[in-house]
Amino acid sequence: MTVIKDSVHNHINVKGVARALLDTPAMQRLRRISQLGTVQFVYPSANHSRFEHSLGVYHLVTKAIDTLDIQGIQMKRLQAAALLHDIGHGPYSHNIELVTHRYTGKYHDDVDEIIHTESISDTLREYGLDPTHIANLITGDETYGQLIAGELDVDRMDYLVRDAHHTGVPYGTIDHERLINGLTFADGELVLGAGNVQTAESLLVARALMNPVVYQHHVARIAKAMLRQAAERLLKETDISATELRRMDDYELFVTLRKVSETKRLAKRLDERRLFKRAMWAEFSAVPPRVREMSYEELREAEAEIATQLETDPTSVIIDVPPTPTMTESTSRVIVSGEIRQLSDESPLVSALRTAQKQQWRMGVYVPAKMAAEAGAYATNLLGIEEDGSFITEYETPLTTLDDFTT
Amino acid sequence: MTVIKDSVHNHINVKGVARALLDTPAMQRLRRISQLGTVQFVYPSANHSRFEHSLGVYHLVTKAIDTLDIQGIQMKRLQAAALLHDIGHGPYSHNIELVTHRYTGKYHDDVDEIIHTESISDTLREYGLDPTHIANLITGDETYGQLIAGELDVDRMDYLVRDAHHTGVPYGTIDHERLINGLTFADGELVLGAGNVQTAESLLVARALMNPVVYQHHVARIAKAMLRQAAERLLKETDISATELRRMDDYELFVTLRKVSETKRLAKRLDERRLFKRAMWAEFSAVPPRVREMSYEELREAEAEIATQLETDPTSVIIDVPPTPTMTESTSRVIVSGEIRQLSDESPLVSALRTAQKQQWRMGVYVPAKMAAEAGAYATNLLGIEEDGSFITEYETPLTTLDDFTT
Amino acid sequence: MTVIKDSVHNHINVKGVARALLDTPAMQRLRRISQLGTVQFVYPSANHSRFEHSLGVYHLVTKAIDTLDIQGIQMKRLQAAALLHDIGHGPYSHNIELVTHRYTGKYHDDVDEIIHTESISDTLREYGLDPTHIANLITGDETYGQLIAGELDVDRMDYLVRDAHHTGVPYGTIDHERLINGLTFADGELVLGAGNVQTAESLLVARALMNPVVYQHHVARIAKAMLRQAAERLLKETDISATELRRMDDYELFVTLRKVSETKRLAKRLDERRLFKRAMWAEFSAVPPRVREMSYEELREAEAEIATQLETDPTSVIIDVPPTPTMTESTSRVIVSGEIRQLSDESPLVSALRTAQKQQWRMGVYVPAKMAAEAGAYATNLLGIEEDGSFITEYETPLTTLDDFTT
Amino acid sequence: MTVIKDSVHNHINVKGVARALLDTPAMQRLRRISQLGTVQFVYPSANHSRFEHSLGVYHLVTKAIDTLDIQGIQMKRLQAAALLHDIGHGPYSHNIELVTHRYTGKYHDDVDEIIHTESISDTLREYGLDPTHIANLITGDETYGQLIAGELDVDRMDYLVRDAHHTGVPYGTIDHERLINGLTFADGELVLGAGNVQTAESLLVARALMNPVVYQHHVARIAKAMLRQAAERLLKETDISATELRRMDDYELFVTLRKVSETKRLAKRLDERRLFKRAMWAEFSAVPPRVREMSYEELREAEAEIATQLETDPTSVIIDVPPTPTMTESTSRVIVSGEIRQLSDESPLVSALRTAQKQQWRMGVYVPAKMAAEAGAYATNLLGIEEDGSFITEYETPLTTLDDFTT
Repeated sequence: MTVIKDSVHNHINVKGVARALLDTPAMQRLRRISQLGTVQFVYPSANHSRFEHSLGVYHLVTKAIDTLDIQGIQMKRLQAAALLHDIGHGPYSHNIELVTHRYTGKYHDDVDEIIHTESISDTLREYGLDPTHIANLITGDETYGQLIAGELDVDRMDYLVRDAHHTGVPYGTIDHERLINGLTFADGELVLGAGNVQTAESLLVARALMNPVVYQHHVARIAKAMLRQAAERLLKETDISATELRRMDDYELFVTLRKVSETKRLAKRLDERRLFKRAMWAEFSAVPPRVREMSYEELREAEAEIATQLETDPTSVIIDVPPTPTMTESTSRVIVSGEIRQLSDESPLVSALRTAQKQQWRMGVYVPAKMAAEAGAYATNLLGIEEDGSFITEYETPLTTLDDFTT
Repeated sequence: MTVIKDSVHNHINVKGVARALLDTPAMQRLRRISQLGTVQFVYPSANHSRFEHSLGVYHLVTKAIDTLDIQGIQMKRLQAAALLHDIGHGPYSHNIELVTHRYTGKYHDDVDEIIHTESISDTLREYGLDPTHIANLITGDETYGQLIAGELDVDRMDYLVRDAHHTGVPYGTIDHERLINGLTFADGELVLGAGNVQTAESLLVARALMNPVVYQHHVARIAKAMLRQAAERLLKETDISATELRRMDDYELFVTLRKVSETKRLAKRLDERRLFKRAMWAEFSAVPPRVREMSYEELREAEAEIATQLETDPTSVIIDVPPTPTMTESTSRVIVSGEIRQLSDESPLVSALRTAQKQQWRMGVYVPAKMAAEAGAYATNLLGIEEDGSFITEYETPLTTLDDFTT
Repeated sequence: MTVIKDSVHNHINVKGVARALLDTPAMQRLRRISQLGTVQFVYPSANHSRFEHSLGVYHLVTKAIDTLDIQGIQMKRLQAAALLHDIGHGPYSHNIELVTHRYTGKYHDDVDEIIHTESISDTLREYGLDPTHIANLITGDETYGQLIAGELDVDRMDYLVRDAHHTGVPYGTIDHERLINGLTFADGELVLGAGNVQTAESLLVARALMNPVVYQHHVARIAKAMLRQAAERLLKETDISATELRRMDDYELFVTLRKVSETKRLAKRLDERRLFKRAMWAEFSAVPPRVREMSYEELREAEAEIATQLETDPTSVIIDVPPTPTMTESTSRVIVSGEIRQLSDESPLVSALRTAQKQQWRMGVYVPAKMAAEAGAYATNLLGIEEDGSFITEYETPLTTLDDFTT
Repeated sequence: MTVIKDSVHNHINVKGVARALLDTPAMQRLRRISQLGTVQFVYPSANHSRFEHSLGVYHLVTKAIDTLDIQGIQMKRLQAAALLHDIGHGPYSHNIELVTHRYTGKYHDDVDEIIHTESISDTLREYGLDPTHIANLITGDETYGQLIAGELDVDRMDYLVRDAHHTGVPYGTIDHERLINGLTFADGELVLGAGNVQTAESLLVARALMNPVVYQHHVARIAKAMLRQAAERLLKETDISATELRRMDDYELFVTLRKVSETKRLAKRLDERRLFKRAMWAEFSAVPPRVREMSYEELREAEAEIATQLETDPTSVIIDVPPTPTMTESTSRVIVSGEIRQLSDESPLVSALRTAQKQQWRMGVYVPAKMAAEAGAYATNLLGIEEDGSFITEYETPLTTLDDFTT
């Protein structure tokens, strides 16, 4: 058994198959994949890695295994899946996932190929585990996969607390011990036992509060859009494949961007934190449906059109349109009066959070600071944004700050 | 200047009039008034006092004074009011406030009389402050009184963080520095500046999550009802006046209850934590309006009727009906797009919290454990409670509760 | 099983005999015994109780039991002993222990009588445990008693962390998980396994740093001496016996002191924090051996002599002479290169801590502020204190502050 | 003014010259320089950067400026020096400092050249500051330079707390607010005011406890030695200059090591954490003086000799001999009884720490795991190490170590 000191969970005991998997290159690579990517540009302390997060998820799944009294091979499977659940992340985690996905069809939880690399699959087999089975658990398949990827998974419990610890934003401070103690299976579904409506709410509330302040902070989004822009160019202008890009670590991605002539200007901007500014920023209701639903190609064309108008190079204009909030019902389930019920039926808070998600939605147009005012005016007009629910940049925003949500 | 070490805010610098007020008997008495009263029976670490809380409120008001650039005598007034804001609390803080209020007409923030006692009023006058003026600030009067008692007051900011620290429940962990940095006055109203919808929400959410788990935990409510019962009896059966009762500290109240023959049985129960149990527990919609609106006397009569039926003494039955949630709109104001707006208009979360408040409402009937089943059945019938939204003690599942030991 | 939320250890699972013992009056009384007594006068947040500390010790012993793989009845015994280890404490914990000891011959860990009261002994027997056996474990008897009372006991691990949490002084922040993981038995002795010299040092260092700043802070010592003075008077002037005094809780002690005419003046001073001041304060080397070794009676005579000189009542003068540091070798043992060695042989730090203990020793003479200068001069002369290593009060010390170690 | 959220100090207000300096490339580069280098291999959460540390030092110097009432240009100078104090660090901070120093003659605090680059020197001059002057403050020159680099500097206060926060090791938890409140100048020297012997001790104790567990953990030392080895080779085998190497960031160093054929094997080992193991590990007294004083060339020769014996390539053997602890007296000064005294004269603890420093000294020989036993035996013999105070790898018990996984 190895004891590892963690800044969040204190001592983590790693043993068995998890201990063996720790030494594989795919796991060690996660030390160099930052958990929150460009959120570092907003919160300078947010330098934690997917490696420590993976250890945390392993730690929490082990506690859940204990609570749920899961034994034998099922236990080993879950521990392996927990530790490996993020090995499919590309550099800067989610930041360029959409780019690599467009080329490879794979999101970060599609780890089938990686899990079949020799060092991992040999290790798994040594402990009697089937790699394909573990890959399936990671996407949330089967009853036990809900612990790894589902509404009540331990992944989220770890990242909320860890991101709060490292950013310094307190909103993610959930009571993960109580959540795990409350877990139970009912008819094959992972639910929270009686008396836990509140506990379930607190998990969703924590995420809802962290979202605009941390995960969707506009400065992080701008830097992410620039990085995505650079990554797209890399694939277009060099012979680096999307599969190769996805297997880089943060180090290699940045050094490559600096060296390739078509991306070096963006790389320098990121290195020196000379980020684009918001030329325009609009609420959901102010954006015409046809803009919200623009395809990848249409967005690139609109960018080019704005760039032409500004007489600048097309990589200097970024249109950032997040997907429409799906408003799927929260699928968390809680036992109330002996029945399994949807949390959303029990909790007025949860339905409000769904509304809030839409209200927090913003689209943006980002350009170098000096062109912001002109680009804002032009883009607003071009895209038919309503002026009431948007703003155009007329001033400089602070560079390294957290304290502006709406500006 | 005196530097005081605080478990929540680290070092608190106390100077000027605040330093002088600290040495008055009325302030020192707060060392022996527990902040959360019977919440100690649920959270054993919740032994913090009104004294440390008052220091915390003084600390935060001093930070707000700095942010808002308040000078001279206004500054001194606010610091005095912050430090003194809780001197009107009776023993066990809010726990027996309703009892003393019925006799004296005074709530804890009615401190006019106490503030005019010699040691305090002399100290205030020495620093050029008028005691009546300070008493008014404490009830939230005038522009600056909003900092002491209002929707965005520093009182709440301190107690949420402090109660979270001492109970161990993380939900109160707000970002009080950011809240204070965001404060501003607009047209004489205390509001949060632009970009703070989220910050305001987090304050209300924190309170909403702490409420059922800490402040209204059913075990704390049972113990509080027993204490209130005992206090009422004390006033009826002895020549202790309500005014005297209100000026006792926790020590004296408990020792007195142990000594008076009519209260010693209840005192022993509290000392040994042999609390009453819930005979019946009902949701808002399950309770007929006439029961929710019963007067003090009607409730006592209903208790007596149940006691007669159970052939027990009337102090062994407690009916606990909280006031109907007022559903007043949240009056927090935030600047959005240059206008002062109601937070409730901007935030779907806040309206949900108002709904949640009603949903969390419960009435209870408490009796000694051995009579619980019988009392529950009888009370349900007597009061016309609907069975769907209530439970009688034989179904032991608590609805919204943390682990409640010895209940 | 009951889950209790603790501000230090988060969730504590209490089961079996421990769960049953929790409901006994002797355990519930500990809710009203403050852990640090008059340290509250220095650190306003230090209001934690022996009850929460006892739960913490139970929690840590359970972890140690797990590490050491202790099974069956031995496990139950240890858990009972851990939970009960402080039931012998009088009001304000150690503060008046010397007084009650002089009359009863019993320190706080002499719990034989209390453990044989019906509610506890019946509970123990129900779980197959012998009360006398548990009482012996509490004084550190037998191999396993070392876990409860010994150089490496879990008692100390809990109180250092808990006292740090509640005072806000960070020096007690030890790595208790690592300490417990390192515990092992070698030849019947509790030792720390290989690689733990550092871990053992940190425990001793933490205590050494907490000592002058928290446990022996001069303001806490003054208040303690006043409380002791008052307690002595209570025994002399009333028919309250030392055994009764020892079984009071904090509430009853304070209310009694207020009511008895011979102690009410001291009680009022404590209630209002009008503490005596140091008239004189002297280092070890400045105090003649005959003074350091004065008997109880000799000290009282010297106090009376000073009081006569000051024309005041004898309870207004307190001479406070701590015992000479015993300089016993630290008996912590650590495995180094396969041998059990004394920590003091391995660690230069530990020997230094023994020297430091002597250097931190101070004797004091305390009187009401207005007599301090005169009393200091007279006492220095009377007791033959060397002026180099002492000081006489010439000024007022701050009342509610931590920041003066030497003044 | 910009407000930055920090995981350690919460909100940091950055303004004036500091705000302007933040946007220079030299400062932004520090985001990609890890604070603790290879300590990451022991503590997976220790991914914090020099950037956040520099912000912390700026924050603390601003507090010290307030305490010491430093005004005008002196204030601006100190704030600039605090923020810039680490811009001279090479990749992985101290890890390859000795290598670049041998070629360039510059340690990390020699920032004269960097501070004269256009973006920084222009910014400084705009605020009326002289770059050379700031560079001198950074090396501790002048009275105020003591705040940046001296026995009581704020640099150390930040890193101890920050390193504790991110590693999870609690020993660095000092009371930095109290330390800063205690600072004062006496005869041009930065000292701690009366009553702070304890405070000063705690700072030194914290560092002494962190040293073997964090900064000198043997696994971090092994990885550091491997990195140093690789860096030396890079300078020898490529045309990268030491000055260029020093200006790389972590990203570029690692990617370069991977690409250069002479270093790619070591880079792969570091990427995959297949670290060398200790073949031999010896205490100070066991190592002959001539070995402890070996020159750079002599050490390389000894390594080559062992490599020849093992029939392996010379980069596979590393001899790691730390400098002899200098045992300089601690120069911290504290005011005691009105005089400025050396802390070491007042504190038995501090002299013990000097002894401890020597006792914690270890030299090591590191090789790939499979050669460890053979290399250990041969090296012990070759270097004339006494067997009593050393171990060869077959005895696997580490002497003073935290759990070291994959070692």
